[in-house]
Amino acid sequence: MSNFSGYPGLEDAGETMYSLVKDLYPICRSITGNGVRVTLDRVKQRIPLAVHEVPSGTPVFDWVVPKEWNIKDAYVLTPGGERIAEFSKHNLHVLNYSIPVHKKVTLEELRRHLFTLPSHPEWVPYRTSYYKENWGFCLSDSQAQSLPDGDYEVFIDSTLEPGHLTYGELFIQGESSEEVLLSCHVCHPSLCNDNLSGIALTTRLAEYLAERQTRYSYRFLFIPGTIGSITWLARNEGKTTNIKHGLVVTCVGDAGAFSYKKSRRGTAEIDRAVLHVLRHSREGFREIEFYPYGYDERQYCSPGFNLAVGSLSRSSHGQYPEYHTSADNLDLVSPESLQESFETYLDVINVLENNRTYLNLNPKCEPQLGKRGLYGDVGATAGAKLKEMALLWVLNLSDGEHDLLQIAERSGEAFADIQNAAEALRRCDLLKEKSDGAAV
Amino acid sequence: MSNFSGYPGLEDAGETMYSLVKDLYPICRSITGNGVRVTLDRVKQRIPLAVHEVPSGTPVFDWVVPKEWNIKDAYVLTPGGERIAEFSKHNLHVLNYSIPVHKKVTLEELRRHLFTLPSHPEWVPYRTSYYKENWGFCLSDSQAQSLPDGDYEVFIDSTLEPGHLTYGELFIQGESSEEVLLSCHVCHPSLCNDNLSGIALTTRLAEYLAERQTRYSYRFLFIPGTIGSITWLARNEGKTTNIKHGLVVTCVGDAGAFSYKKSRRGTAEIDRAVLHVLRHSREGFREIEFYPYGYDERQYCSPGFNLAVGSLSRSSHGQYPEYHTSADNLDLVSPESLQESFETYLDVINVLENNRTYLNLNPKCEPQLGKRGLYGDVGATAGAKLKEMALLWVLNLSDGEHDLLQIAERSGEAFADIQNAAEALRRCDLLKEKSDGAAV
Amino acid sequence: MSNFSGYPGLEDAGETMYSLVKDLYPICRSITGNGVRVTLDRVKQRIPLAVHEVPSGTPVFDWVVPKEWNIKDAYVLTPGGERIAEFSKHNLHVLNYSIPVHKKVTLEELRRHLFTLPSHPEWVPYRTSYYKENWGFCLSDSQAQSLPDGDYEVFIDSTLEPGHLTYGELFIQGESSEEVLLSCHVCHPSLCNDNLSGIALTTRLAEYLAERQTRYSYRFLFIPGTIGSITWLARNEGKTTNIKHGLVVTCVGDAGAFSYKKSRRGTAEIDRAVLHVLRHSREGFREIEFYPYGYDERQYCSPGFNLAVGSLSRSSHGQYPEYHTSADNLDLVSPESLQESFETYLDVINVLENNRTYLNLNPKCEPQLGKRGLYGDVGATAGAKLKEMALLWVLNLSDGEHDLLQIAERSGEAFADIQNAAEALRRCDLLKEKSDGAAV
Repeated sequence: MSNFSGYPGLEDAGETMYSLVKDLYPICRSITGNGVRVTLDRVKQRIPLAVHEVPSGTPVFDWVVPKEWNIKDAYVLTPGGERIAEFSKHNLHVLNYSIPVHKKVTLEELRRHLFTLPSHPEWVPYRTSYYKENWGFCLSDSQAQSLPDGDYEVFIDSTLEPGHLTYGELFIQGESSEEVLLSCHVCHPSLCNDNLSGIALTTRLAEYLAERQTRYSYRFLFIPGTIGSITWLARNEGKTTNIKHGLVVTCVGDAGAFSYKKSRRGTAEIDRAVLHVLRHSREGFREIEFYPYGYDERQYCSPGFNLAVGSLSRSSHGQYPEYHTSADNLDLVSPESLQESFETYLDVINVLENNRTYLNLNPKCEPQLGKRGLYGDVGATAGAKLKEMALLWVLNLSDGEHDLLQIAERSGEAFADIQNAAEALRRCDLLKEKSDGAAV
Repeated sequence: MSNFSGYPGLEDAGETMYSLVKDLYPICRSITGNGVRVTLDRVKQRIPLAVHEVPSGTPVFDWVVPKEWNIKDAYVLTPGGERIAEFSKHNLHVLNYSIPVHKKVTLEELRRHLFTLPSHPEWVPYRTSYYKENWGFCLSDSQAQSLPDGDYEVFIDSTLEPGHLTYGELFIQGESSEEVLLSCHVCHPSLCNDNLSGIALTTRLAEYLAERQTRYSYRFLFIPGTIGSITWLARNEGKTTNIKHGLVVTCVGDAGAFSYKKSRRGTAEIDRAVLHVLRHSREGFREIEFYPYGYDERQYCSPGFNLAVGSLSRSSHGQYPEYHTSADNLDLVSPESLQESFETYLDVINVLENNRTYLNLNPKCEPQLGKRGLYGDVGATAGAKLKEMALLWVLNLSDGEHDLLQIAERSGEAFADIQNAAEALRRCDLLKEKSDGAAV
Repeated sequence: MSNFSGYPGLEDAGETMYSLVKDLYPICRSITGNGVRVTLDRVKQRIPLAVHEVPSGTPVFDWVVPKEWNIKDAYVLTPGGERIAEFSKHNLHVLNYSIPVHKKVTLEELRRHLFTLPSHPEWVPYRTSYYKENWGFCLSDSQAQSLPDGDYEVFIDSTLEPGHLTYGELFIQGESSEEVLLSCHVCHPSLCNDNLSGIALTTRLAEYLAERQTRYSYRFLFIPGTIGSITWLARNEGKTTNIKHGLVVTCVGDAGAFSYKKSRRGTAEIDRAVLHVLRHSREGFREIEFYPYGYDERQYCSPGFNLAVGSLSRSSHGQYPEYHTSADNLDLVSPESLQESFETYLDVINVLENNRTYLNLNPKCEPQLGKRGLYGDVGATAGAKLKEMALLWVLNLSDGEHDLLQIAERSGEAFADIQNAAEALRRCDLLKEKSDGAAV
């Protein structure tokens, strides 16, 4: 579908990310509990994550950190004595956050606690009940249809008790205190694209950036969806003013074309940077206007914060049939897709890191590029201009009103070509950065 | 063509309006004279109209109120002694504002005073000569073609003398002194769509609003076209600053799709409100940019006033074959079309009345809707969001910069859904109106 | 392709321009030297051009005026004793700015100095080497392919010595000190469309305007490309603030559809004026966004000047196969195309000269046009409005915020109709110019 940008030395990133997905797949996660802790431990083996524990009952804006949920086992015993919907076989079988239960029920009562997906009769749906106490089982519609009348035994060996909400955070200091936020949710159980792919990509990105000098600081959040971002924002309100750009990382492992959901602002630098990258290298991508649903961008883009946070994914929230079902498994994601997504994120970061505003130091007429070795010698061929256009655009638009990304957008040239041209001109003292501060 | 919005108790509005059209059809109206007075008397039987009389000769901006015209009878006597173009059979037969005449003329001279419509040879055209004294007859082209040579007798028993220009006005006081202007012209003789339909709809709207508490005040004008709006504006210049929204009501009885001609401003709230309503419920409607021709919006939108007045009609000015001909009769309009137009006006008024700007009182992250009973309990189904989107949009955009109509526009949701969501959130103290004054 | 606007008395302009092209065709021009002087002498026979000589070595912004180049003869002698690539037969055969050379070379060495056009094997390309000393020959690819092995004699009898850069300038004083700049390049040797057509049209335009009273002053530049505009700008920096509108005149003699390359500003009055004219009368024209390549607009639109200078041509820079080849000859251009281009320039100048902002002196409601003889007498016909729309638009939009060109754009009426309407209204004292200064 798209061409790999090619980052030498990073060719095996896709395989590494896929391994992590595989490793994390069996774990039963939720918005709290040991599943998250185990997951963060595995991530910690690769990057120096700080793990935070926030006690149940802590008020976070309009919300309260809920009780901690853990589960050991669960199943339904049929009248014929068969165990079905066994947690040990697939953790999606249990309604996530089910309270403990062990009793006999009629088929009629059982049905009020069963969740199925009639449109895909062989798949098990993923369902949760975080904020209203309930118990339930998810199973394939075909199995649910064939249940005989009679008495059933339901058994859920879970706990829902005061404990903690757990999240991971890594901050990498760059030259500037201005930050790029990369946020992924870690609350989904055995679901690969949504969002083990996001955890794996975010981890690999952190590994990569930790080894480099960067202009921006980078903040990585591994948080339970909704309550996690609300908790982080409530505890770190003062830090949000440093967040200049951000992305919610999710659904980056499937084979679908890329989609970008813009920030609430709609024309923030992150929006322009991502769309520039997609336009220049990713065919068939979808540009999605902000809407107040989806993932944690909902919280980052709430009106009281209105951060410049978008979400770059492949198939997007709720838009693929396997979404929130047992079919979002290890077959749906691939090393190749993860690799391509990773390189797309690197391309975006490259734009952010290098998007500066320059001043043309020779603004009256063009400078003589030839005497500086920047220009073809024998003029007047139609083809020659192709190599020079990036130089000419940078000179023409470096009036202090256009950053390099705007020059790339107006010229139609790729950002990398514009960036190279600016660098060449800067070396010849034809350009200087408008402000030597970290950002424009 | 479109679905009726359904206003319980108003199902017979179409029939009522059609009756009024039928009642007013035979009357010969003009820009002055007894036809207007009789018409306003009939309207007055339904709503407490104030009738104003402005003397001929009164200067009104660049114009002067003309002499009053009245007519008793008119016809042409053929060489064979047959009466044709009889006023008593159809008042369109006389050139409106014809001076009195009674003499013998040759066919040649007669022809200089005949008006026909060759493109529709059986129809009688509607012609006027308000500001240049003239006499004339309008008749079907087929009849005009068959006139034999010889001497004709022309007889017009009219008067053109100092008198008055008559118009009707009704003001309904609302909570706010800011007004909605609804203006219709009452100068056309036996023409149903243009504009007995407008008179009937405006009357019914006034009846409806007079019974209700409204946010805005409403001003209804029943005026002769052009000279009437000029006269009103000249006499009420000081009141125009209160006019916040306005519509010229015309051509609302035929079966054509809706058309909306925008105000000169083009993006006024009335423009956005009407277009929102049409987009969400009226298929095949036409959006027409303002142009300085048409009906009284020409005067309301003259540069010295530039009021936010558009015109909401079905088939629009000059755009249907029956326009200004004897074919604009009782068959062209129907109770069904009038009903649908009436409900469309009510929908627009509903938007204006309820379009307020709110502030999200919990702007940092989303509030927990579930604990307030505003949210589905079992999360994570793709379908569930549909019911919640209006709530989420209102919360996300209630930053004081967006009114509800803008939220409806950006979200793609219908205004009524956005309004309901805002009301639900306000009841939960999650929202308060930005300013408690009457309007945003 | 397009309709001639018809300027009575100017019907032979095309023929006159074509004669000048024919007259100038044989001369070998370059960015300096006697070819330019002879060319300007011929132009001077028609218009009172001032010819300026700027010494080699003069610094002009980042550049230095180069040595002067002149040439008497050049050819290649084949092993068989045949003279090929003879300058006396076609001046394109010599690499423009070739240093003198006279020696024996092998075919292999010769080939390093040959330029051909394989895509058009019978055409001779046009090549230059102004700023890197070199010698070379241009010839048809088919001839170059057939050269036998052996020793060749190359002979170029040129001089490259301190001298001058020559350019021509004509300033016509108008009512206002604000200027329209018309600039053409005079450095191309035997190439007709690019740019003898431009020289001819600019000359004819200067003749035309010299005979008339104009609102604007007009400045005509006949300059070598790039170094010429840089030199002029360096010597006349203070004058540039008077340049309100400008066009680079080039490629106006071929049969292609018109193209307009916008100024860097993109929405300057000159951009809107040219596009209005093309939209209303020239089918199939192309609208080209500014890019920092092409002709002297590169310099005029450099960020330190950012002048409102576009380029109006037919086939545009590099976009026709004959561009910069021997096929850009007297057959490529025609009197008809030159005539049409000339009239298009006149149309644009007409818009600029007449584009004023007026104030409606009767802004409250429409004035009564009928009593001033500006209106049809018998109202109410659908057709009548057509004649009146321009009057109504001018009245409606003459609020001091719209110039006539904006009124033409918004109304969809042709500028000439809007201008006529404004003139009629001004005569009736319904309109006055907003500011009686020269320009809006």
